[in-house]
Amino acid sequence: MFNKVLIANRGEIAVRIIRTLRDMGIVSVAVYSEEDKSSLHVQLADEAICIGPAKSKDSYLNIVNILSAATISGVDAIHPGFGFLSENPRFAKMCEECKIKFIGPSHSVIDMMGDKSKAKELMSQNKIPIIPGSDGAVKDVIEAKKIADEIGYPVLLKAASGGGGKGMRIANSSDEIKKAFEGAAMEAKSSFGDDRLYLEKVILNPKHIEFQILADEYGNVIHLGERDCSIQRRNQKIIEEAPSPVIDKSLRDEMGKTAVRAAKAVGYKNAGTIEFLLDKDGSYYFMEMNTRVQVEHPITEMVTGIDIIKEQIKIAAGERLSHEQKDIRISGHSIECRVNAEDPYRNFAPTPGNIIGLHIPSGIGVRVDSFIYQGCKVSPHYDSMVAKLIVHGRDRAEAMSRMKRALGEFIIDGIKTNIDYHFNIMDIENYKSGDYDTGFINTYMGVD
Amino acid sequence: MFNKVLIANRGEIAVRIIRTLRDMGIVSVAVYSEEDKSSLHVQLADEAICIGPAKSKDSYLNIVNILSAATISGVDAIHPGFGFLSENPRFAKMCEECKIKFIGPSHSVIDMMGDKSKAKELMSQNKIPIIPGSDGAVKDVIEAKKIADEIGYPVLLKAASGGGGKGMRIANSSDEIKKAFEGAAMEAKSSFGDDRLYLEKVILNPKHIEFQILADEYGNVIHLGERDCSIQRRNQKIIEEAPSPVIDKSLRDEMGKTAVRAAKAVGYKNAGTIEFLLDKDGSYYFMEMNTRVQVEHPITEMVTGIDIIKEQIKIAAGERLSHEQKDIRISGHSIECRVNAEDPYRNFAPTPGNIIGLHIPSGIGVRVDSFIYQGCKVSPHYDSMVAKLIVHGRDRAEAMSRMKRALGEFIIDGIKTNIDYHFNIMDIENYKSGDYDTGFINTYMGVD
Repeated sequence: MFNKVLIANRGEIAVRIIRTLRDMGIVSVAVYSEEDKSSLHVQLADEAICIGPAKSKDSYLNIVNILSAATISGVDAIHPGFGFLSENPRFAKMCEECKIKFIGPSHSVIDMMGDKSKAKELMSQNKIPIIPGSDGAVKDVIEAKKIADEIGYPVLLKAASGGGGKGMRIANSSDEIKKAFEGAAMEAKSSFGDDRLYLEKVILNPKHIEFQILADEYGNVIHLGERDCSIQRRNQKIIEEAPSPVIDKSLRDEMGKTAVRAAKAVGYKNAGTIEFLLDKDGSYYFMEMNTRVQVEHPITEMVTGIDIIKEQIKIAAGERLSHEQKDIRISGHSIECRVNAEDPYRNFAPTPGNIIGLHIPSGIGVRVDSFIYQGCKVSPHYDSMVAKLIVHGRDRAEAMSRMKRALGEFIIDGIKTNIDYHFNIMDIENYKSGDYDTGFINTYMGVD
Repeated sequence: MFNKVLIANRGEIAVRIIRTLRDMGIVSVAVYSEEDKSSLHVQLADEAICIGPAKSKDSYLNIVNILSAATISGVDAIHPGFGFLSENPRFAKMCEECKIKFIGPSHSVIDMMGDKSKAKELMSQNKIPIIPGSDGAVKDVIEAKKIADEIGYPVLLKAASGGGGKGMRIANSSDEIKKAFEGAAMEAKSSFGDDRLYLEKVILNPKHIEFQILADEYGNVIHLGERDCSIQRRNQKIIEEAPSPVIDKSLRDEMGKTAVRAAKAVGYKNAGTIEFLLDKDGSYYFMEMNTRVQVEHPITEMVTGIDIIKEQIKIAAGERLSHEQKDIRISGHSIECRVNAEDPYRNFAPTPGNIIGLHIPSGIGVRVDSFIYQGCKVSPHYDSMVAKLIVHGRDRAEAMSRMKRALGEFIIDGIKTNIDYHFNIMDIENYKSGDYDTGFINTYMGVD
């Protein structure tokens, strides 16, 4: 097992990883930007090294500085968390070259899955169902129109290197193809430096269902069931739950097996997520694979009892999976709300500032993964998520009642947050009944 | 179901109960002493009523004031928590007379189980194993000596109305009987207004094992497994765990059945606890029954997934048990440390004062039931427990590592606590191996 691990991240996921490192008796090394010198992850880690100024590109995205910190502190491995360098194949490769274990899959798999159109192509070759669309990147508007006319509208034009909702346009008819293509390409170019697009049929208001995968370095792969992440605002997940209220055991088994097969097809190692779109008729399509831990991983931990970060570390250290598929039992129900420093009444503008008063909910069935404390500053330089409020109950009704209770109890004074927004969602009939899809927010919370 | 419930308590258990009431959609009414006007339970409840000055006898023990508050606020039921009036049969009876449901067993059962010697007599009649000793209260020193000579030394003289370690003396030989009898009787008189004593054989360094019982009003009784509460300082539990590291399935089933039989024998209703002493040879003896929720109930919640407070309320409202014995599954392992405002280096003297800085641990497998917040005052008028730190893991090793991590992360600035004391216990080999009994603290942490 590793003696010392560096966490190449900040905020709640850095705190999350430090906690498991401590549980495992591994020395933790935090890195931080000048902006984050008082941050909780710095205070909780055994060691902490400053890696540059506030701007992410100068610190949390600065590969040279991070690898220098890793070398100086003599760590055996680096956990990248999510975001930042977690899906950067070059970083994974450079870790390898420095003889530091990157806690994640190989750089070649990250690379392969990072190219969304290549990933789909590969999955298609391996008989994983994919959404009808272009066979790889489309050459130009003419080709896009030809394919769209074949598979039917609406279609989505999507950046090959994309993520986070950037570089995406919908065309509802052949008239709209040209504008959508050019808009998506331009945004893709400016966001990712890569204007290649792929095209696919739009599944209207599907469910976003993803399967958590664990894969060791000996070819053993299991899944930990699904997460329903259909409550999204502008393609960003805001509430997730496990299990999905619409998936029964037989569909879970089938999709789970497909997810395992997909992971095996790419020789996947470590924790990963296979994202599917689930249509109203029960058909499902591979959307993409995330080659890192997800923000919403705790809901899977709550229903399986498995510490996914611990599994990642064990796998990276060369251990075999400690669970077989038959040992995985989904117990009860879990929901996560992402608490963001943003103002729902001002178009969700970020609301950085100082937290002058804080009461974090607690008690039975409540877990909060966060990095905020009374007196801390929420920086304008980074992601607006300040806490993940996670609940567990024996069933969905109990989990929902605990979420409402915990939201009602959560007090963050000094900055505006989306806590009330979540609270309101919990009261919407279609949320309560589980009858929702990715169109939920637009339908019930107003189109942005 | 009830519409409105009053909580006749304060501190963490009041907060604990309010949380479940909110989960259930029931309006909560807090009561508070003048000293507690800024207390968290007052802030979290839907309504709050002041019931008198700081001293417990003037407020939290003031039956008339509490029943007035209940009547004024129009509640359907009262939850007494633990301590204060929770085991006062007169209070339970007066609730009944006021047509307010007392969330607990009937006053006659409280009365019966409150008299420790009568309780044992009754259990003995029902073939529940009890520790050899006097058949009810002993008349005088002469009778005490006669019985002790028969069953063998050491023997314990214990107040019939006792609890909390008060009114207890050990005699190691016939020479010590007189002094022990008189000392115990005097302390019993001053503490409980009742100098009757019973006598029993001392089981040297047994395990303290208790079974959680749930019983509805229709004669259905189940148990939720055991808690090992052997880590005690001066007869006060400080660390508890579930399941016990020394109890296997067959012993659990046997003791559990005995506990259920004991509860049925007294016509028990609601949640209760049967406490046993477990000897090294595997024999076990009924010690007493606690007719209320225990401080350490959360560890049972963590391993069963059952909200015990919710079950209490449902039972009191006339619902049938929602679980059968065969549905109860012990999953993983849970440990609780009682965090007290006391100074281990000054003979555990209470350390009331203002909490000026606070970081409560969180993350996977960690639950904190507490009422403290940054800026709050810990009053000298009440119990010194300020938080219950509860962890859960897939197995005992994982639970222990999480407890150490959480203890290490817990920061309470402004007052001294026993957090470090707990941390040190976690490192002791006999704790880690599970090989400990009620003699543990004296053996490994120094005799007080």
